[in-house]
Amino acid sequence: MVQVGANRYGKAEIRVVRVARGAAPDGSDVIRDWNVSTSLSGDLDGTHLTGDNSQVLPTDSHKNRVYALAKELGAVEPETFALELASFFVSSQEPISRARISVEEYGWTPIGATGYSFARAGDLVRTTTVVHDAATGTSVVSGIKDLVVMNTTASEFWGFPKDAHTTLAETKDRILATAVNASWRFRPDAVATADWAAVASTAKQTILGTFAGTYSYSLQQMLYTLGSALLSAVPELCEVRLELPNKHHFIVDLAPFGLENEREVYHADDRPYGLIEGSVLADDAPEAGLAWT
Amino acid sequence: MVQVGANRYGKAEIRVVRVARGAAPDGSDVIRDWNVSTSLSGDLDGTHLTGDNSQVLPTDSHKNRVYALAKELGAVEPETFALELASFFVSSQEPISRARISVEEYGWTPIGATGYSFARAGDLVRTTTVVHDAATGTSVVSGIKDLVVMNTTASEFWGFPKDAHTTLAETKDRILATAVNASWRFRPDAVATADWAAVASTAKQTILGTFAGTYSYSLQQMLYTLGSALLSAVPELCEVRLELPNKHHFIVDLAPFGLENEREVYHADDRPYGLIEGSVLADDAPEAGLAWT
Amino acid sequence: MVQVGANRYGKAEIRVVRVARGAAPDGSDVIRDWNVSTSLSGDLDGTHLTGDNSQVLPTDSHKNRVYALAKELGAVEPETFALELASFFVSSQEPISRARISVEEYGWTPIGATGYSFARAGDLVRTTTVVHDAATGTSVVSGIKDLVVMNTTASEFWGFPKDAHTTLAETKDRILATAVNASWRFRPDAVATADWAAVASTAKQTILGTFAGTYSYSLQQMLYTLGSALLSAVPELCEVRLELPNKHHFIVDLAPFGLENEREVYHADDRPYGLIEGSVLADDAPEAGLAWT
Amino acid sequence: MVQVGANRYGKAEIRVVRVARGAAPDGSDVIRDWNVSTSLSGDLDGTHLTGDNSQVLPTDSHKNRVYALAKELGAVEPETFALELASFFVSSQEPISRARISVEEYGWTPIGATGYSFARAGDLVRTTTVVHDAATGTSVVSGIKDLVVMNTTASEFWGFPKDAHTTLAETKDRILATAVNASWRFRPDAVATADWAAVASTAKQTILGTFAGTYSYSLQQMLYTLGSALLSAVPELCEVRLELPNKHHFIVDLAPFGLENEREVYHADDRPYGLIEGSVLADDAPEAGLAWT
Repeated sequence: MVQVGANRYGKAEIRVVRVARGAAPDGSDVIRDWNVSTSLSGDLDGTHLTGDNSQVLPTDSHKNRVYALAKELGAVEPETFALELASFFVSSQEPISRARISVEEYGWTPIGATGYSFARAGDLVRTTTVVHDAATGTSVVSGIKDLVVMNTTASEFWGFPKDAHTTLAETKDRILATAVNASWRFRPDAVATADWAAVASTAKQTILGTFAGTYSYSLQQMLYTLGSALLSAVPELCEVRLELPNKHHFIVDLAPFGLENEREVYHADDRPYGLIEGSVLADDAPEAGLAWT
Repeated sequence: MVQVGANRYGKAEIRVVRVARGAAPDGSDVIRDWNVSTSLSGDLDGTHLTGDNSQVLPTDSHKNRVYALAKELGAVEPETFALELASFFVSSQEPISRARISVEEYGWTPIGATGYSFARAGDLVRTTTVVHDAATGTSVVSGIKDLVVMNTTASEFWGFPKDAHTTLAETKDRILATAVNASWRFRPDAVATADWAAVASTAKQTILGTFAGTYSYSLQQMLYTLGSALLSAVPELCEVRLELPNKHHFIVDLAPFGLENEREVYHADDRPYGLIEGSVLADDAPEAGLAWT
Repeated sequence: MVQVGANRYGKAEIRVVRVARGAAPDGSDVIRDWNVSTSLSGDLDGTHLTGDNSQVLPTDSHKNRVYALAKELGAVEPETFALELASFFVSSQEPISRARISVEEYGWTPIGATGYSFARAGDLVRTTTVVHDAATGTSVVSGIKDLVVMNTTASEFWGFPKDAHTTLAETKDRILATAVNASWRFRPDAVATADWAAVASTAKQTILGTFAGTYSYSLQQMLYTLGSALLSAVPELCEVRLELPNKHHFIVDLAPFGLENEREVYHADDRPYGLIEGSVLADDAPEAGLAWT
Repeated sequence: MVQVGANRYGKAEIRVVRVARGAAPDGSDVIRDWNVSTSLSGDLDGTHLTGDNSQVLPTDSHKNRVYALAKELGAVEPETFALELASFFVSSQEPISRARISVEEYGWTPIGATGYSFARAGDLVRTTTVVHDAATGTSVVSGIKDLVVMNTTASEFWGFPKDAHTTLAETKDRILATAVNASWRFRPDAVATADWAAVASTAKQTILGTFAGTYSYSLQQMLYTLGSALLSAVPELCEVRLELPNKHHFIVDLAPFGLENEREVYHADDRPYGLIEGSVLADDAPEAGLAWT
């Protein structure tokens, strides 16, 4: 005999753009360019077992609610939007006990002085995931996605064990490049009061400054340093998770061509790549609960 | 104060192709076209905290081991390869207590009778993830990725709740299309004896046959039916997880052009899309432990 | 002073799916899964110079025409559809003197015996581009996209010049793998009579059979052999163009691990890759005119 | 009988990163992050017809030359690099009469004051294509790729013809968004003297400023205005080609939810999309020759 296990459903990748005309302090438009995904859980055995949809609010209605809420709330921070949306589904749909809302926000930079002209900022994708559970409460995890950074020096890698398959040479100078994928969990008691925009800005600046300011002996060390710095810079946070692909830049052997490569010419390789994943926790971090699900 | 949380590291996306020349029953070559990723955990605080790499086998050595093992094992099933590789790292690297190995296998179809000519089979990506932990043992989760299927009819969707944002019409006939992403967890006692190739083949045929043979009232119902059928067809399995994007095919309104659209012309939409995720479990399924991490 | 140069406009990537219910000889449904792009040229100076749109049929109307025509024509071959659509725009829109219509068709394979169940065939993307010009007539170029094939042997590469930057070793045995991107131009007098489906089927089989049956000394030789074989197999064609990326499979040096790699273990590399582009022409091929624009 | 038609071959997507340490005016490092592709033409019938490779410099040697030249030239402008490389192949390989070199350059922005820390600039991909032909000379086409811009207003679209398939409403206010793909051809007599960096900078600023400063009645008008502005701002140019996808932002109908959408909530659609392609030419532009091949 078999049974229904954990499940959820929703509408993925709702591409809503909210324009708040003249809403900036200088009278410019404010743009929120979002990719919103909803995911609801609860008493959904009926639709799984028999196709009885009486508990299944259509995902098309999720989408409609996203558009309507964007109108109602204005160009708010993505965390504010996700919190409101998650709460809405759980409170208005009786069978639904949990909602997970995730938002990607794409940044735009003003062009000139028109107040209505913008260029897409290629280096900023903010993320947020809110889980609102009727029983266990609400969590907020925000972050940044694919922030590509490079130190052309100040990176070593040596002192590692050598087994029968180790041919890698030790190095006291290499390029260190990665795409920072970072997510930070807010303390439960900060959810009601956090300044989402300020945290996002501080976090990005902390990542950039820490990456530049850290002399590296391993990408793991960089990961821990980045996480620690974020926890230190933003007291509202209790945990940071990072995924750091090692974007290998291999120095090219030019000796066959009678040239010496004095840390000048590199091949930017695609695959395979090192992948470092880890978490940094405040000592007093509360349990994560459903935050990362 | 902060601390190192859960972490792991490895080499991602090692693209190894193993040719076993003449190894097929008819004397043809056998190809294994793999994308292998390694991920090791254990006592790695040193490298995080101080950049002391004395416990960190380089990911370059992971890659080398993959190539060497491919030579040694021959064109085995991906599960066999992943089990051997996971065990190797944990047993040979003292600080490493856990290894997670994942493999994607891309299928190839023979062309003609040369025995050495093949075309890539676009509709078959097998997956497997082995987690080998020194303390808790070994798990195997295999699956299939992005198998795109469509029923042009035999799909209804109605009887759902209507809230203030519901505009979707009920339907007794729609196209149902999805990309099946399925993963199945083997029972622990089947890991030593399972016929991996037979399971993969049976599972794919079961998915195709069940999808075609199921009259659908919701994609959730299809998910549960697929999962149940897999558990029934392959007794070695105890859990199936599925992610089914609803690849919406919207019927086009041709009335403005004086035409009636009698279930003939559809727009295949990109985003947003419904996303149904769920698990189907055998009643006697043992705890998953680390299998899905 | 500046002037408007060559220009065109249209709607790109209209994802129309046409279902012809019961239309197959055995009573099954026939599916046409298309990605259609339109592009019109003519007297369009007004909109460029002043934004006067009186000559600019909206691209939204292009899209609508695609849907309506799919209804009217049924599940025809993509060439038939493109010819009709191109002719429609030029004949019905006075300022428009030229239309270019391109279609990608994604293949589907029946599942079981329902007549309405299908799986996407990953290895078949047909293409066609029709250019219809009021002055110079009509051309049809069809083809196939990204058909990935591999010979595990029967490929050599040697006898090449060695300059100061040549380090590549000659080889009498390598893997030859490529993604066949082929386009074939029909003779003008075949456009009215060609059996599009038969040509597409013959062409694909010819490519597969020729690739398998050709002992290769260079990818250029393979290109020419493929092109020649297509011209020979399909007399309606007068020119074939091919783009063949060399999907490098590098043999891995296992000597550092005490192993000999006897043509068994390869690394499938991503970038850079060789890229061979070329055309094969019938001696009596008429001028291409606008066919490839 | 068949014959070899036009053909070329080379190495595509060589990912070379050149670091010039301390070379910036302030002592910082200068980075050139490039994706280089080579393509050679000439007397290559032998390899096509018989697999005689005596005229075929291996693409692996192309790659090696790219790395060596990066060492020799330092962190030069991509145009300088492409010109030198193209000339090298034609002058050093007797059978080769033409070389086409294309480079994509990815921008990086300094972080902090280390002089060696950078973040990838997501909004800047410069391109250049040099064709050097022994008989007809040298051309340079440079450009910018996927610069995504948006005006939230100052865009109308009306006055277009209505045919039987036109349902689009006229509008006096819409969002205009596009990804600017622009290429500019240099006058032949400017190739020896152009300040490549200055042109690239001026061109980008001109595109941004013109996009923001233009009240639009059609995307074609915007295209022509952008092209004209580039020709005016950079006298070294004689032709500009643009590809402008219309990144549709459709206003969402909120009336079913009792809300009025006052130009606030939009759906950013994926496909289909309008695609406007066109050229703007100086009246005295010389023939393009091989520049765009």
